[in-house]
Amino acid sequence: MTLSEQMTRLARQAREASRELGRLTTEQKNLCLRVMADALERNREAIQQANQRDMEAGAESGLSVAMLDRLKLDEKRIASMAEGLREVAALPDPVGRILNERVRPNGLRLQKVSTPIGVVVIIYESRPNVTADAASLCFKSGNATILRGGKEALHSNQIIARTMVDAARQAFSEFPEHAIQVVPTADREAIRELLSLTHYIDLCMPRGGEGLIRAVAECSKVPVIKHYKGVCHVFVDREADLKMAMEIVLNAKLQRPAVCNAMETLLVDKPVAQRFLSMVLPAFTEKKVEFHADAASATLLKSKESRVKAVSEQDWSTEYNDYVLNVRVVDGVREAIDHINQYGSAHSDSIVSRNEERAKQFLAEVDSATVYWNASTRFTDGGEFGMGAEIGISTDKIGARGPMGLEELTTYKWIGYGSGQVRT
Amino acid sequence: MTLSEQMTRLARQAREASRELGRLTTEQKNLCLRVMADALERNREAIQQANQRDMEAGAESGLSVAMLDRLKLDEKRIASMAEGLREVAALPDPVGRILNERVRPNGLRLQKVSTPIGVVVIIYESRPNVTADAASLCFKSGNATILRGGKEALHSNQIIARTMVDAARQAFSEFPEHAIQVVPTADREAIRELLSLTHYIDLCMPRGGEGLIRAVAECSKVPVIKHYKGVCHVFVDREADLKMAMEIVLNAKLQRPAVCNAMETLLVDKPVAQRFLSMVLPAFTEKKVEFHADAASATLLKSKESRVKAVSEQDWSTEYNDYVLNVRVVDGVREAIDHINQYGSAHSDSIVSRNEERAKQFLAEVDSATVYWNASTRFTDGGEFGMGAEIGISTDKIGARGPMGLEELTTYKWIGYGSGQVRT
Repeated sequence: MTLSEQMTRLARQAREASRELGRLTTEQKNLCLRVMADALERNREAIQQANQRDMEAGAESGLSVAMLDRLKLDEKRIASMAEGLREVAALPDPVGRILNERVRPNGLRLQKVSTPIGVVVIIYESRPNVTADAASLCFKSGNATILRGGKEALHSNQIIARTMVDAARQAFSEFPEHAIQVVPTADREAIRELLSLTHYIDLCMPRGGEGLIRAVAECSKVPVIKHYKGVCHVFVDREADLKMAMEIVLNAKLQRPAVCNAMETLLVDKPVAQRFLSMVLPAFTEKKVEFHADAASATLLKSKESRVKAVSEQDWSTEYNDYVLNVRVVDGVREAIDHINQYGSAHSDSIVSRNEERAKQFLAEVDSATVYWNASTRFTDGGEFGMGAEIGISTDKIGARGPMGLEELTTYKWIGYGSGQVRT
Repeated sequence: MTLSEQMTRLARQAREASRELGRLTTEQKNLCLRVMADALERNREAIQQANQRDMEAGAESGLSVAMLDRLKLDEKRIASMAEGLREVAALPDPVGRILNERVRPNGLRLQKVSTPIGVVVIIYESRPNVTADAASLCFKSGNATILRGGKEALHSNQIIARTMVDAARQAFSEFPEHAIQVVPTADREAIRELLSLTHYIDLCMPRGGEGLIRAVAECSKVPVIKHYKGVCHVFVDREADLKMAMEIVLNAKLQRPAVCNAMETLLVDKPVAQRFLSMVLPAFTEKKVEFHADAASATLLKSKESRVKAVSEQDWSTEYNDYVLNVRVVDGVREAIDHINQYGSAHSDSIVSRNEERAKQFLAEVDSATVYWNASTRFTDGGEFGMGAEIGISTDKIGARGPMGLEELTTYKWIGYGSGQVRT
């Protein structure tokens, strides 16, 4: 079988499985998720053996210690995957919600009802726990999944998916065996083949570094929902409560610098720049934060801090995921908004201000998936939004935007209930 | 300037205009739409002159009479465009609707609010009235539009857009002049250039024949919302009220055969096939409908009707838009659902039945944008759905699905209202 035939078969099987998934009740889906969780724990030795094969091959091929750590499945991580499945089982079913309802003058009743999307391809990098997380969220929302993790995790991903499917089939004979599939090859061409099959595949969600996501978006013929990166801003307005602003700015940068909703650029309004920067400097200095500063802020920072570099044009669009911060002094909210819309990644941006008019202008005009007034950017997260588990974050505008939980893994259909209506 | 530079400029201008559009109030937008409508009527002689140039060039290049008729802008059609704009002005603003609201345990209030999408490219064929219709719906929903009509209508499209923009700018100096732009060249490469500009363009909606739409979807790097064709089905179940079924089937096929929500394939359940086909035959015969029939239905039809051909595999997926009908006798709802999911276009499909269980199965399992129980497929239409004007119909699953009105031209953002919340 050629690669193209192999991928077509995989995709066709997923489409067929998605039809069968649509027939399962909420109770049946939850039962499946719970037996999958039990099976992952029961099968942990075999999972760890398969993972060990990946680890050994990874070490041989020279994976970094950090990469090997991400790849590793110990007992705790397996238990945590199982717990994740039980949590998904406990979440409400996102399918069948009535999103809109209307009765037309001719008596035709129209309902807009949430439905599964169908077949979802998830492309990700090294962490094998994504296999269980993504598959469970897709399954709960009635979608068949095709999973394509990092090639270094192939054996781990395969055994996780097989364990889940086998457990569900034992508990429930109608469970479609192709509901969760792992792309069985590390060939990169497989992704291109798969993402050309618009007839069988409805959506692709790549997760990982910007390079991976751009490569997927570039080649895909099926819709892609993604975020390339998180270049998030906090703007400290001239009428901010500066103590509040300080707490928000430090939290947005320092609480967990490596995540996508951490702040990369601080915009501070001219009239309060000097005062505010001297307020936040001690905490940043303590964490050895390196500043990439525009001329105005560099002048203010340099007298007290040595780790100040001149910011480059490219820096403004860079996601450092590290103890590095761009700083710019802006003259008012207009400049702040324009800066964010030009250089940001449309992810999460915040204004700190007591001035309602300017705050509302910021919230309306910053063209990002999530905007905040007097809160840290770090809240952009499915759990923090009360969505339960999160499958990713979208900075796109078509389909889901912002954190994506179960509801964001559904689409809708219109149902017309008639009593013989015809059009005149 | 190269074509690529020209398209980049167009797209960048549209992006900038979209930022300014977002600042207009509902009242300002409605005022603009009303003065645009007046200007179209006032400027009708110049519009007709430009249209005459297109008509003459079209006649010279050998356009068919039907094509020339579609191209023509007479006084009545100009008045109808103006009336369309006034209707859009009277519709509710789709921007700023609160779609979801929640307060988190930490007091952070989250609102999911509808917003404009940004920059929308509309690609269409010969009718120049689409220029005014599409531009007005995009404008009302706060989106900048780039319009690309048929090359034979270029002068007509340009003068319509210019009339609209000039009128709005005279009435309201802040109206962004690039809110509505027509691609100024007939070069087909322009579309490919434009649809590679993901940084500036958020959505493309092609309208027209399947060939045009496939070409656009194939080359586009920006999201596309579309329907390729309408291969719609009516399934007459064994427990249908056959008189009701007859009215629905005749309406779905004959009321306006050339439109996308007309029925192309009749599926009739085995136990009632003979009786039902003889009931509908006289009306179809009167209209000289040609049947493409499977073996079972051919046997039933042939004794009474000469216009019966053996259906081909390809026929099942063909949109005739004409007095041609595929007919198949199926053995139960399962076969009907499978047929529709295999051969249909996911547009509009209907079941006629008194049996609630089977009807619900059909509504749940037919994977189409709109499904009906005891009603004609002909209702899939923005106006019939009470959406006001319609910009198109989507059979996609990401973004809007089914008829698209103003609300379907919006996306959303999350707004977090805090009082200093930080993540712990």
